[in-house]
Amino acid sequence: MSGVMGAATREALKQIFGDRYSENSSVLASHAGTEAHHEAAPPDAVVWPRSTPEVVEAVLTCARAGVPVIAHGNGSSLEGNTAAVSGGLCIDLTQMNRVLRVSVEDLDCTVQAGVPREQLNAEIRDSGLFFPIDPGANATLGGMAATRASGTNAVRYGTMRENVLNLTVVTPQGDVIRTAGRARKSSAGYDLTRLHVGSEGTLGVITEVSLRLHGRPESVRSATCRFPDPISATRAATEAIQLGLPIARIEYLDEACIRAVNAFSNLQEAEADTLFLEFHGSTQSVQEQVALFGEIANNNGGIDFRWAERDEDRNRLWAARHSAYKAVVSRRAGCRGWATDVCVPVSALPGSIAHAKSLLSQCTVPAAIMGHVGDGNFHVVFSVDTSSASELSQIAAINDALVARALASEGTCTGEHGVGIGKMKYMNAEHGPALDIMRRIKAALDPRDIMNPGKIIPSI
Amino acid sequence: MSGVMGAATREALKQIFGDRYSENSSVLASHAGTEAHHEAAPPDAVVWPRSTPEVVEAVLTCARAGVPVIAHGNGSSLEGNTAAVSGGLCIDLTQMNRVLRVSVEDLDCTVQAGVPREQLNAEIRDSGLFFPIDPGANATLGGMAATRASGTNAVRYGTMRENVLNLTVVTPQGDVIRTAGRARKSSAGYDLTRLHVGSEGTLGVITEVSLRLHGRPESVRSATCRFPDPISATRAATEAIQLGLPIARIEYLDEACIRAVNAFSNLQEAEADTLFLEFHGSTQSVQEQVALFGEIANNNGGIDFRWAERDEDRNRLWAARHSAYKAVVSRRAGCRGWATDVCVPVSALPGSIAHAKSLLSQCTVPAAIMGHVGDGNFHVVFSVDTSSASELSQIAAINDALVARALASEGTCTGEHGVGIGKMKYMNAEHGPALDIMRRIKAALDPRDIMNPGKIIPSI
Repeated sequence: MSGVMGAATREALKQIFGDRYSENSSVLASHAGTEAHHEAAPPDAVVWPRSTPEVVEAVLTCARAGVPVIAHGNGSSLEGNTAAVSGGLCIDLTQMNRVLRVSVEDLDCTVQAGVPREQLNAEIRDSGLFFPIDPGANATLGGMAATRASGTNAVRYGTMRENVLNLTVVTPQGDVIRTAGRARKSSAGYDLTRLHVGSEGTLGVITEVSLRLHGRPESVRSATCRFPDPISATRAATEAIQLGLPIARIEYLDEACIRAVNAFSNLQEAEADTLFLEFHGSTQSVQEQVALFGEIANNNGGIDFRWAERDEDRNRLWAARHSAYKAVVSRRAGCRGWATDVCVPVSALPGSIAHAKSLLSQCTVPAAIMGHVGDGNFHVVFSVDTSSASELSQIAAINDALVARALASEGTCTGEHGVGIGKMKYMNAEHGPALDIMRRIKAALDPRDIMNPGKIIPSI
Repeated sequence: MSGVMGAATREALKQIFGDRYSENSSVLASHAGTEAHHEAAPPDAVVWPRSTPEVVEAVLTCARAGVPVIAHGNGSSLEGNTAAVSGGLCIDLTQMNRVLRVSVEDLDCTVQAGVPREQLNAEIRDSGLFFPIDPGANATLGGMAATRASGTNAVRYGTMRENVLNLTVVTPQGDVIRTAGRARKSSAGYDLTRLHVGSEGTLGVITEVSLRLHGRPESVRSATCRFPDPISATRAATEAIQLGLPIARIEYLDEACIRAVNAFSNLQEAEADTLFLEFHGSTQSVQEQVALFGEIANNNGGIDFRWAERDEDRNRLWAARHSAYKAVVSRRAGCRGWATDVCVPVSALPGSIAHAKSLLSQCTVPAAIMGHVGDGNFHVVFSVDTSSASELSQIAAINDALVARALASEGTCTGEHGVGIGKMKYMNAEHGPALDIMRRIKAALDPRDIMNPGKIIPSI
């Protein structure tokens, strides 16, 4: 795969980036898209720009030679989204890590693409505002925009789709575009912001992101609640959504997941189907939400509410939830993660989870289920020995079956991880003739196919 | 302009549509895009399909002959969005007026594109759900999707951008695509839903729309509140947003607007800068919101809260607000409407309104200001004698000045009316090199430029 990049291109990039250019093999290996089970596909070189004009120079240098360009954040994506499957230049944006502007009045900010979400929240802590989108990993905001990330808070605050105000993007032609202004709404032509959100770097390199911020809620309460079985737990979640309860987080963890999390994070949750919950609002509103959800849980057999009253208990709870993926994967030494990611209309969720459970009962690979169930989105996380053909084929078959059921329910093969290389094979089944529209857009905006090639849209 | 459509195409369409094909001159005139001040541009013929396959037949018949195709709903758009500037076939979708599916469990529905929003709300009344987006006019939901409409409730419930789940679209090639499934979120490739929302029929004909629905709030309270000047009124609105108050509607009407509305709708509001307000939520939450807004209003000199306690009073209030455009326009016999439509970050709103007021003080054309001020969006509505070059040029100059200031504030030339023909001249200033991306997309998806040509993207 390597060797796409000729000597002249390498030399030109070295001239521009100096010691921020590398061909070191361990550097290349750490930019090979291997957070999960996908095969390593290292780039030919990595550069670390510090400004949009430097990204333009890198893109133009590559474009002249027809060399692929892969934008890279913290490398936490799970579908090989940043794997350099045709070699090329990895543009690592992590040195573009400045918060450029915060407007408390407009509840928005602009950051460079390499700012991780936790850094943003630390820097705006005193403003009374926060950025809610939380995929678990401390991903960069550019990467989160590129994959249309979401996570635990999306049920109340939306995904990156709803929370990106505009993007600065370097096009494959080396132009710098801004996809929109800062008004809360606009009808001025095609929605280029939403086109780039979720495009996984295949249409350009995102260098700046303007985001909506939200006021910190006056009151926050977190809890866990145990259920007799997966159907009861997910039904409680979907009923809460159907009643319009503005719950901030409602996460399902199955028994296996709780077992892993208890071990990994030193929690003492009972090993049962469990919801992790969080309520945001005024003191009164949170009281109302808690009371209403209590009734819903009760009607579905929910017992043993455990409230995290202090901030530190709450933080511990969510840190544990966030490390659930790692907790499950690390149960077997030397194994890698594989996370499925279907999302279905909430009415189809209890049946989909039951289906997943029945598939797992036949599977020899250790697995656990966790889900952003208020959105109808769940993951089966496997701890896989990637040297075992049997394990890989069992998981692939389960993944196929989960996706087939999701699509039959008018759902999607990926709720939040993106397509990368892992989900390309489902794109035709999910989109049918609409896939041709995506293909036309890609060809129109990136006619030489230099932007993260081999992703999202399968070859015909 | 007419005569684009040859005899063979006319004959073929007559064969397909029978008495649902017309070349009658009054029919053509009523499909000429003249709701506001724009010059009439009638199509060569109109058809009324009843199904997506019939739309496909119409599109393919036109595509074969390179004849323009203009999708048309209730004709309430204000920027000549459906004017047949190069002739061609108008596809009137108002006979595609069936609600196809309502899911109370998933809080969503699917409608044919020609269903007007009031019909949808009437049909789902017993479900406990409602569709909040409310641009005033009883527009079709396909038309609202096409222009990315919003209106009075957008401050709480979002615009069509946030409330369209997926679209069925007939492409210029006659393919039928569905832009997404029904999951609340997805990361499966380019966001074709958001690409088509706001594309004003330039990329295809929308034939079906799936929408998010919302639970009817337990409690609703509406009020008006008077302020000493425009700055105070708009500052109260922006402070409410900055505090994260989940207000459902917050509408500004200036003194001239109140005068027109009083006369037109037989209200007795004091002739002053006024906010029309609505609060949605649980009984407790509405009480909290009312109390908090009361403080904000008080701090900004707001007085004389008048509550509409009964449903009929509330409906009367909002009917009056909705007829404000008509109320202002009809103050002069034989005159037409011209509504500007800038949207700015909320922090820039009080200054923008003050600027508009100062521009109007020099203008001889009767005008009033009304705005969805929680979103930073406002309209100056003129009642214009379109035979007067002086009036037209005064308004054009004010429009230019409002847009220039909005763009300088990182706002937009149109918050919700769309580009049509009226806002094309601002697209370059607003988007810069990003306009070339729109141009590439249009050329890629509609290479023969048959879909609503002459809109959104100015010729180079």
